[in-house]
Amino acid sequence: MMRYIAAALLSALMISPAIAQDCCAKKGGQEKACSRVIQTKVPERPAGQQDMLAFRAPKLQTVRIGIIGLGMRGVSAVDRLSVIEGTDVVALCDLHQDRAEKSNAILEKNGRHTAKLYYGSEDAWKKLVERPDLDLIYIVTDWQTHVEMAKYAMEQGKHVAVEVPAAFSLDDIWTLIDTSERTRKHCMMLENCVYDFFEMTTLNMKNKGLLGDIVYAEGGYIHNLEEFWPYYEGDWRMDYNIKHRGDVYPTHGMGPAAQILDLHRGDKMNVLVSMDTTPRNLPAYLEETRGVKDAKVANGQHTMTMIRTEKGRTIFIHHDVTTHRPYSRQYNVAGTKGYASKYPAEHYAFAGTDLKEAGMPAVDDLSTHSWVSPEMQKELYEKYKHPITRELEKRAKEVGGHGGMDFIMDYRLIYCLRNGLPLDMDVYDMAEWCALIPLSQISLEHGFAPVEVPDFTRGAWQRLKGYHHYMIGD
Amino acid sequence: MMRYIAAALLSALMISPAIAQDCCAKKGGQEKACSRVIQTKVPERPAGQQDMLAFRAPKLQTVRIGIIGLGMRGVSAVDRLSVIEGTDVVALCDLHQDRAEKSNAILEKNGRHTAKLYYGSEDAWKKLVERPDLDLIYIVTDWQTHVEMAKYAMEQGKHVAVEVPAAFSLDDIWTLIDTSERTRKHCMMLENCVYDFFEMTTLNMKNKGLLGDIVYAEGGYIHNLEEFWPYYEGDWRMDYNIKHRGDVYPTHGMGPAAQILDLHRGDKMNVLVSMDTTPRNLPAYLEETRGVKDAKVANGQHTMTMIRTEKGRTIFIHHDVTTHRPYSRQYNVAGTKGYASKYPAEHYAFAGTDLKEAGMPAVDDLSTHSWVSPEMQKELYEKYKHPITRELEKRAKEVGGHGGMDFIMDYRLIYCLRNGLPLDMDVYDMAEWCALIPLSQISLEHGFAPVEVPDFTRGAWQRLKGYHHYMIGD
Repeated sequence: MMRYIAAALLSALMISPAIAQDCCAKKGGQEKACSRVIQTKVPERPAGQQDMLAFRAPKLQTVRIGIIGLGMRGVSAVDRLSVIEGTDVVALCDLHQDRAEKSNAILEKNGRHTAKLYYGSEDAWKKLVERPDLDLIYIVTDWQTHVEMAKYAMEQGKHVAVEVPAAFSLDDIWTLIDTSERTRKHCMMLENCVYDFFEMTTLNMKNKGLLGDIVYAEGGYIHNLEEFWPYYEGDWRMDYNIKHRGDVYPTHGMGPAAQILDLHRGDKMNVLVSMDTTPRNLPAYLEETRGVKDAKVANGQHTMTMIRTEKGRTIFIHHDVTTHRPYSRQYNVAGTKGYASKYPAEHYAFAGTDLKEAGMPAVDDLSTHSWVSPEMQKELYEKYKHPITRELEKRAKEVGGHGGMDFIMDYRLIYCLRNGLPLDMDVYDMAEWCALIPLSQISLEHGFAPVEVPDFTRGAWQRLKGYHHYMIGD
Repeated sequence: MMRYIAAALLSALMISPAIAQDCCAKKGGQEKACSRVIQTKVPERPAGQQDMLAFRAPKLQTVRIGIIGLGMRGVSAVDRLSVIEGTDVVALCDLHQDRAEKSNAILEKNGRHTAKLYYGSEDAWKKLVERPDLDLIYIVTDWQTHVEMAKYAMEQGKHVAVEVPAAFSLDDIWTLIDTSERTRKHCMMLENCVYDFFEMTTLNMKNKGLLGDIVYAEGGYIHNLEEFWPYYEGDWRMDYNIKHRGDVYPTHGMGPAAQILDLHRGDKMNVLVSMDTTPRNLPAYLEETRGVKDAKVANGQHTMTMIRTEKGRTIFIHHDVTTHRPYSRQYNVAGTKGYASKYPAEHYAFAGTDLKEAGMPAVDDLSTHSWVSPEMQKELYEKYKHPITRELEKRAKEVGGHGGMDFIMDYRLIYCLRNGLPLDMDVYDMAEWCALIPLSQISLEHGFAPVEVPDFTRGAWQRLKGYHHYMIGD
């Protein structure tokens, strides 16, 4: 009752700037004391349950894999996982028999034995998950089935890798965290964009000090899906966009930003605010292609989310799947000594003197006021190529045609599982990156109000010191 | 008293997403009913006072001008204004005699008579303003003196043109509005960036329907001032940044966004939210160059502001004067049929079919998923060049070397005054663009809370139908 009174009182207030500042001052100058931040409930960690930070599972000689979902993304996962050393693709599952069989043909093409196939019913996947001869369940299904499958797989004693976004509600996110902590099984979200060349190189530059301290990271998913809408099974993606306001696909933008800002490894997100544009192109598309008049679409044309961290750093995330503009993940990173920008073209800029200190040749036009020259950039790419990218280029040449970010992602997943190392992305990464979905919705539905980002580690965000790709010997 | 109780209650609340939605639902589903928006006081319009929308002053055969402030920007204003037909630069003022004399030399160089000079005291400018033989006071002084000078000039019966930002507080903004409305004198802010080539071309494309309905506009001021800090009289700019949190220089970004969105000409800003990054580079600069340890700097390293309009469209504005990255005004515009982006390179993208309808040649790579080709872009630049730009190019060739956006700005100001037309920017543009300074500060100091943007027209924002550059005959 009190909360309704408070909200009603506050929304009716007319405060002058001077008084507004007084309100802060009276509370001792602390921002939080007079902020209107909305908090969500953080469930207490069950007694005896421990966090999964830097969790190491027993080494696996061979990683025995079951894959669920053999649509476009699933088929290519079958292809990739069956060329990586130390894997055994044991079982495959899809609603459709023909898709399952097509995937078996890929295994044969790659010189592997065929897999046991599961198909034909809505819960065929459960039978796959229950097999005792699997270590990893790799989930590439539609958005709505991720959580149930991932939870059940961990409960059946399997590690889980699940496509983006892994979860859509705070309840589901906390469920996956609690399940992973309770079962001591990995729950990794398959966010491939953190492995792209420019992002990896920039992360390595940051590790080498070339960018100074990182203060800002931007990311997003800007992809006009007009040509793709007809191809989602049962129209699931359109359906989700029609029904849900908020940034419903934030992980491609969040992933690289989170890693370079060391989220829950020395810093953490405190608060976010979202704002969106009234949808125009999606209702027009539904009228033009499906004859739906005045379609009610919840999802904004362009959704923006600003995030502030404990250390006073910021993140900015975009979502736009209908505007007529080229694909962009809006990757931008600002450090105290340099700046990286990926779209529409890849660029770096640095404080003038720092490149010289880093042993790079001085060039005349090198200044903070311009991007480094293409020649210099090429040299930087080579010098600061991430060690994992460098290593995987060699591997890619050996296996042929698999040098992309998806391959690196899968390779790293298998590498870490085989060597008993913490994975590159843990269950808290999944939680933080997916949390923008429900939290942005809350902000939007409360007039663009600030919303507290929960500490999904429940107090342990300072224990690890910086983001790290674990290697043998770590 | 009640407001402190409300704020305290609310900040202590723990609400689950479900309950938060209930709160909205209980209030009838309206966003505002449960939003935490901060409102500022809108002073009532004094009885008998009328708005200045599309205001026409009597025609002036010759515009007699007094210029105050002859620093870098002032000197070039003297140069420009003395090559435009129908002007008479009657009087000049600066603190320093040598500067005033240098400006007189420019008048002579341009074949004009010398001006009466005012200098040597802090209020020498008042004597200039009080001259009865002036029509326009052109103010190019430091930020803090703008309002006093502009107000006094209007009260002395002069039109006013004043450098950006014209005003920094809501009180000052309302003072300029009320003074302009009361005295029936123009008060135009000298925002030159609305006249830049790409922005004018894009505005014209919008007018011709090529972009569809505009749904989003982005802008900003990203300019590393490291090399410029020593050159501001009395360190005024550094001093302002040290003392003030918020977007202290928003007008270069706001201007082009506001014009293409028809602000107070059919749409209006309703609410904004700001977030900033803890300053790092400015404290470091103060330590390195001035030996100041642990300098307290209020202004964020990067300040972001999201704005939502009555029609559900959005604006995003950046401010960053210390990060090591190239200059950018971040001009981006999204329409329902196309997209324009100016930095780091100029690009357009369109819904595939619309360019053909517009009579542009079809090219193979023309699709929503890529920018138009450089050849196509060149053709678009020529075909959609703004009529004013086209006209002024001719003029620029005649007078030589004055074809830039500053010249177009001054030319338009004089053209409209001579022809008794409404100016391109009215006092409400000044108000809306400058209002980000105090409003962003309120948002930041209240934990990134949404703040209502006042309707500076006090109810008249729908009377004009779309942004318009007035021409003879209008």
